[in-house]
Amino acid sequence: MSFIIKNASYVYTVDDQDCVLENATIVIRDGVIESINPANVPADITEIYDGKDRLIMPGLINTHSHLAMALLRGWAESVNLDGFLERVWAAEGAIMDKPTSALGTELGAAEAIQGGTTTVLDMYLNPDATHAAAVKVGLRHVTGPIFFDFPGLDGMEWSQRIAFGEEWPTVLKNIGGPEIPIYFMPHSTYTDSPEHLHEVAQLAKKVNARINLHVSETMNENQMVNEKYQKSPTQVCEDTGILDVPVVFGHGVHLSEDDIAIVHSHGTSIGHCPGSNLKLGSGVADYLHYISRGVTVGLGTDGCSSSNDLDMWSVMRIAAHMVALKHSPADVQPAQIVRAATIDGARAIGIDHLVGSITVGKRADLIAIDLTALHLTPIHNLAALLVFAAGRSDVIDAWVDGDKVLESRKVTHIDEPDLRKRVLERVRALADLKVGTK
Amino acid sequence: MSFIIKNASYVYTVDDQDCVLENATIVIRDGVIESINPANVPADITEIYDGKDRLIMPGLINTHSHLAMALLRGWAESVNLDGFLERVWAAEGAIMDKPTSALGTELGAAEAIQGGTTTVLDMYLNPDATHAAAVKVGLRHVTGPIFFDFPGLDGMEWSQRIAFGEEWPTVLKNIGGPEIPIYFMPHSTYTDSPEHLHEVAQLAKKVNARINLHVSETMNENQMVNEKYQKSPTQVCEDTGILDVPVVFGHGVHLSEDDIAIVHSHGTSIGHCPGSNLKLGSGVADYLHYISRGVTVGLGTDGCSSSNDLDMWSVMRIAAHMVALKHSPADVQPAQIVRAATIDGARAIGIDHLVGSITVGKRADLIAIDLTALHLTPIHNLAALLVFAAGRSDVIDAWVDGDKVLESRKVTHIDEPDLRKRVLERVRALADLKVGTK
Repeated sequence: MSFIIKNASYVYTVDDQDCVLENATIVIRDGVIESINPANVPADITEIYDGKDRLIMPGLINTHSHLAMALLRGWAESVNLDGFLERVWAAEGAIMDKPTSALGTELGAAEAIQGGTTTVLDMYLNPDATHAAAVKVGLRHVTGPIFFDFPGLDGMEWSQRIAFGEEWPTVLKNIGGPEIPIYFMPHSTYTDSPEHLHEVAQLAKKVNARINLHVSETMNENQMVNEKYQKSPTQVCEDTGILDVPVVFGHGVHLSEDDIAIVHSHGTSIGHCPGSNLKLGSGVADYLHYISRGVTVGLGTDGCSSSNDLDMWSVMRIAAHMVALKHSPADVQPAQIVRAATIDGARAIGIDHLVGSITVGKRADLIAIDLTALHLTPIHNLAALLVFAAGRSDVIDAWVDGDKVLESRKVTHIDEPDLRKRVLERVRALADLKVGTK
Repeated sequence: MSFIIKNASYVYTVDDQDCVLENATIVIRDGVIESINPANVPADITEIYDGKDRLIMPGLINTHSHLAMALLRGWAESVNLDGFLERVWAAEGAIMDKPTSALGTELGAAEAIQGGTTTVLDMYLNPDATHAAAVKVGLRHVTGPIFFDFPGLDGMEWSQRIAFGEEWPTVLKNIGGPEIPIYFMPHSTYTDSPEHLHEVAQLAKKVNARINLHVSETMNENQMVNEKYQKSPTQVCEDTGILDVPVVFGHGVHLSEDDIAIVHSHGTSIGHCPGSNLKLGSGVADYLHYISRGVTVGLGTDGCSSSNDLDMWSVMRIAAHMVALKHSPADVQPAQIVRAATIDGARAIGIDHLVGSITVGKRADLIAIDLTALHLTPIHNLAALLVFAAGRSDVIDAWVDGDKVLESRKVTHIDEPDLRKRVLERVRALADLKVGTK
């Protein structure tokens, strides 16, 4: 976990000044960035990474996903969110036991790392199993227990969910892996009652946890919640105490000015998923307006049934296009979109003290872009190159905590052909369901 | 140019029934598809391509681009079309002589092939030089003389343009390369007078040429043309006789119902560039409405200053998202988007008798997708996989007229590092201009 990146063509730091260094050196010791362009490189670190024709930048941070749904890629096409849930819940009912949740997460984590994503905020059933799987692949995998009113596929009653929440910090410690915050994940204000949300909020305060939930993904959700409680989903969150701890809203597409004021006053963040939102016809979140109001907004892919991959580069590009569409091309600042995919995502999740920029003292969650690709030639504007021309296949190497999790485009901690084989075998169980419901 | 693809996991034919074959065989003789799943494979063809874990499909067809602008990738950021033209024309003025046009086209052609695009409809200055460069790389490069009222960077007076148009069929024949139609490329109704457009139309009729021009890319263009002629750009095209020959409109974002009726009645096609249109704030063409009115619509990237790459996969994804945005997710048919990128593009350009589907008798312009990629695993819906999960890096091999122009992701007819070196050397000439105008 100690090495020196020498002679990097570019180091795109994403620090406070978006500083870009040329022909730069980065010293990583025990997984931590020890120095950048030091006068003398330490003689005791002998592992050297040649940075020629490489751009080094922070690993991308996916602030909203359901990794295990990689197994259901392309399962629900030409549907809106309601049709989507109907299709997906049937498939999940058929296969998503604990080992399968872990298998799907292993696939998703490996895909994420291969595309240069080093952190994912991941909401799914069986988080103990999914977390162990993602940690094995080397991902900084931020997850936590999920909470619904109904028993759900995992068959857990509410009291069991609360008990599991109490145990979660210990479960996390036992699994190990890259440092992450404690998270609780009530699904949404339409699947968790206000009483239950209040209970989760109390538990979160008690164990110093953060919260991630779906909020205002569609107009339909807003209407449903409003009919039930005469409040917006954001207001329900505020009134139940959810917002008293740091929260990431998944999606947050349809937030009123009042909602935005609430979000801002509580320091709540948003995991913006423009690709999924477009695909499901959920709408277009006004990213630029949110950040202009001081809200921290990261980017996310959502799960693979609505994205249909975990490609944060595609999300960056779409996010930028949506700024131009809702505002104007002059309002598109590529460097801001790069921040959304890195440091702002880290801030949203509450790990910006650890990762999200190349800064001395932070963990070495880094990716190397191969600049020899023809589609990255020539370079006139680095940030625009990253947002509008680069893609997942340009990520050649990646590190999490200084551990080389991707080397020459291969995920180092797993056997890719074997993983693919296990996935194809498992999804055969869906064959009958496919005929029945497609 | 003779070989047999054996045991292809999938052959996505894009024929009239969108037929998909599994474990299929394709026999290619002298660059032509001789048979599909024949009872006996011919014994005299000994070159075998192993189709295991491969999806074979027609090469993608880019119906609107300016390949040489690959040199100006990221040159004009955060601007609308007018700001864009100001920035780009300054850079073109500084470097775009004939050898540089060829160099940029070589870069663009190589990038296109690497991303699985086997045909590009390309409008640029110095088409003799650009065509020779693209043919060298192996692309089916459809181009022709460009026409403006003003002399332009190539310094040609109008009479010289007409004379060059007369010579063009001979120039093409001398350069050789994959079969293409004869094209003339008046830039637009705002840079060519009605008299000049009429003259080009007459010349096109005389030599049996097709026409490609920019039409209704922005509302501003429509207003400008309307103020000058009290007509829409489409009406100007009709009245000058341009539409009497087969035409591809570049962009066609803002077409009225009257325009659509004109376009349909003349069999005019559209090169739809949703990525460029979003990036420059030009608007969102109503693809679904156009095809529902019987208009043939292909997809295009536009040039690399507004895209900023030549990635048709990204364009497919954005095109699909824009259908969901303007209509609904239920209106997004992934198979239709695949058709737009292949057979409909071929039909738009007038080469559907040659390419665009895997059909016996057509040329072998084919691409092989490596299905072992994690982000392509598992497969529940092939068309959705191609539109929403696949990308340029999944194209592992490609053929044009049966010539293997891409092998294991390497462009076979050029030396990539050498090309990159020549490009980087040439764009150094822009350094001063960069300081002055950025």
